[in-house]
Amino acid sequence: MINIAVLGYGTIGSGVVEVLKTNGESIRKRAGDKINIKYVLDIREFPGDPIMEILVHDVNIILNDPEVKIVVEVMGGIEPAYSFVKEALLKGKSVVTSNKELVAKHGAELLDIAKERELNFLFEASVGGGIPIIRPLNQSLTADEIVEITGILNGTTNYILTKMSDEGMNFDEALKDAQALGYAERDPSADVEGYDACRKIAILSSLAYGMQVDFEDIYTEGIAGITDVDIKYAKKLDARIKLFATSIREDDKNVYAMVAPMMIRANHPLYSVGDVFNGIYVRGNVIGDVMFYGSGAGKLPTASAVVADVVDAAKHLNKNIWTIWSSKKLELIDINFVKHRFFVRADRKKASISDMKKLFGEITEVPEVVKDETAFITPLITEKEMKAKKEHISGMLGSIRVRF
Amino acid sequence: MINIAVLGYGTIGSGVVEVLKTNGESIRKRAGDKINIKYVLDIREFPGDPIMEILVHDVNIILNDPEVKIVVEVMGGIEPAYSFVKEALLKGKSVVTSNKELVAKHGAELLDIAKERELNFLFEASVGGGIPIIRPLNQSLTADEIVEITGILNGTTNYILTKMSDEGMNFDEALKDAQALGYAERDPSADVEGYDACRKIAILSSLAYGMQVDFEDIYTEGIAGITDVDIKYAKKLDARIKLFATSIREDDKNVYAMVAPMMIRANHPLYSVGDVFNGIYVRGNVIGDVMFYGSGAGKLPTASAVVADVVDAAKHLNKNIWTIWSSKKLELIDINFVKHRFFVRADRKKASISDMKKLFGEITEVPEVVKDETAFITPLITEKEMKAKKEHISGMLGSIRVRF
Repeated sequence: MINIAVLGYGTIGSGVVEVLKTNGESIRKRAGDKINIKYVLDIREFPGDPIMEILVHDVNIILNDPEVKIVVEVMGGIEPAYSFVKEALLKGKSVVTSNKELVAKHGAELLDIAKERELNFLFEASVGGGIPIIRPLNQSLTADEIVEITGILNGTTNYILTKMSDEGMNFDEALKDAQALGYAERDPSADVEGYDACRKIAILSSLAYGMQVDFEDIYTEGIAGITDVDIKYAKKLDARIKLFATSIREDDKNVYAMVAPMMIRANHPLYSVGDVFNGIYVRGNVIGDVMFYGSGAGKLPTASAVVADVVDAAKHLNKNIWTIWSSKKLELIDINFVKHRFFVRADRKKASISDMKKLFGEITEVPEVVKDETAFITPLITEKEMKAKKEHISGMLGSIRVRF
Repeated sequence: MINIAVLGYGTIGSGVVEVLKTNGESIRKRAGDKINIKYVLDIREFPGDPIMEILVHDVNIILNDPEVKIVVEVMGGIEPAYSFVKEALLKGKSVVTSNKELVAKHGAELLDIAKERELNFLFEASVGGGIPIIRPLNQSLTADEIVEITGILNGTTNYILTKMSDEGMNFDEALKDAQALGYAERDPSADVEGYDACRKIAILSSLAYGMQVDFEDIYTEGIAGITDVDIKYAKKLDARIKLFATSIREDDKNVYAMVAPMMIRANHPLYSVGDVFNGIYVRGNVIGDVMFYGSGAGKLPTASAVVADVVDAAKHLNKNIWTIWSSKKLELIDINFVKHRFFVRADRKKASISDMKKLFGEITEVPEVVKDETAFITPLITEKEMKAKKEHISGMLGSIRVRF
């Protein structure tokens, strides 16, 4: 029997308890031993819930119990999660977490502590919910040099964009719908502004390139500026707008990373990732394109990933699973020098197509969706050039990067 | 330095040599040691190729060299691959293979031998080419009970069906096109008749359910009977025809498995898997739907998967990676008792819609694509019932299972 403790009895924590109960027998076979939840930590009480029998309020009971071999941290946020996790590792316990903030900020350090002690720090559930992506990156794509990772990593924004596209809602309506269904928080900024996706692509990039990618360095733009008119133009172009979290290694081996809405067409593997689903596209220099798809959030899919990590930790109780994520910082390319094509809308009275041709040279005109608008796609230009040219479009109504 | 030997210098074997050369430095980091190819075995000579320096014709040189820790078998076919692999394991070497025939037939036995000796027998490349699917099934989806695996597992047939659908080719034209591009063999029966997909779904099912699924037990139907008229009807129904290799665990925990063409619509995760790509959809009882997509064949993608297994074997030189695949046979449900809906075409003069209504009860009529045809979709009925009813449709022109 292997004793574990669960820190946090919220959505994911209760999911972990449920999964271990539902699939206990097959999990025992996979882990080679029974997994027993000895403690659940939470500051709250849960009257009537059988969890009360093992509920504790003091983390030290867990940290000081040598019988606890694996600690599952599913509280979220940096503190006190960071202190608890670090202390657990220092006391010889492996840790499994679903906490993307914690992993993005302290992943390299916590992996080092685990490695020194032949323990494990596992975090499959921190990116893509139930989708296996951390383990495939670490253990399956090891023959490749990764040249691109692009993900639809935030289910809430993907739901909003899908609703806007499929049902013609505007942004506010789609957001309210997402909130009503529990997909979006009352304060939706972490999702809508792209901060959540930013932390997740920081984690994936750090693993893909083996060095620390600081999320603070990643250019991040959310979807709050996307209007129903943009969606109509996308349809006119046989395209969809998706919030992409992307990191790309260019020929000179430098990496850039960004989170931003992107127009894509049906030939992109992520085109059909709709609703609250997530998809992660990886390109390697020998494997070519691979894509992983599934539920990016939700109680049971996320708990499934957490419990799979518990199984792996149980199978490797005194053996570190090799993960390459050095604390050495990877300096990203300044986004100003990255090139894209941009879809641009402007007030025709202030910016005519011929004005735009003068400004950009070769452009691709887009038939108007709204009366008296100029709409076109620019040639491939740097972000810096685009910024400068925007200053010269007086009737500018919006721009979205294009990947087709 | 870890010495390996490669058995077979064909497409995949030369790909393995190339990948280890191209990405040698990053592979060294991932494996924790340099991977050195000490021997390549082939009966042929390769004048002018630097491989000549390490080419041997006698497998015993490899089997008897204690410095060789990992043997890579990429010859294909049952013999002599089986004898070589078994002997290598018995002599204390881990084995990596891309050989689906070998794994489907002898996987359980070879895994047992490896387990007893704390060695590894790894076969990621045997299914789905470069797509990580074996390792995710073994190591990532461990918290779930798998209730369905459905794959588009054969690139050749998927290419043919895609060409028929996108470019209006008939079957023979599309097959010739695939042969011209090297996607199909001169004798295409292993692909076209579904035998290749059958072995692959046998492997995935054995891993998912932990017991031996004999490929001989799997009902297998190819795509040679699919006509351009069928494709036109599929389009009329907003559907596509895909060769599905599927195994499903029903409520009573019994499993059925089959390979057969299937009509699906855009809401199925495998709908957009086109061309020579493969896609594998897995449904777990807690994780829900996940899907893996990528190049299902090809020199470098397959070699990438082989080398990733070499890296894993190198990291686990004296430790068996736990894989649950007992040699105990899983008795599949008799396909006669499995239910589907069927799309049916018949000569209207011999089989009118009202005749069909009498025969099947509730049917869904499909507008005719070819003059004087009766086309419809049956209610959910067993394969046995369908076979019996077919006897009563004198002008029967074809039927395809429907999954929507």
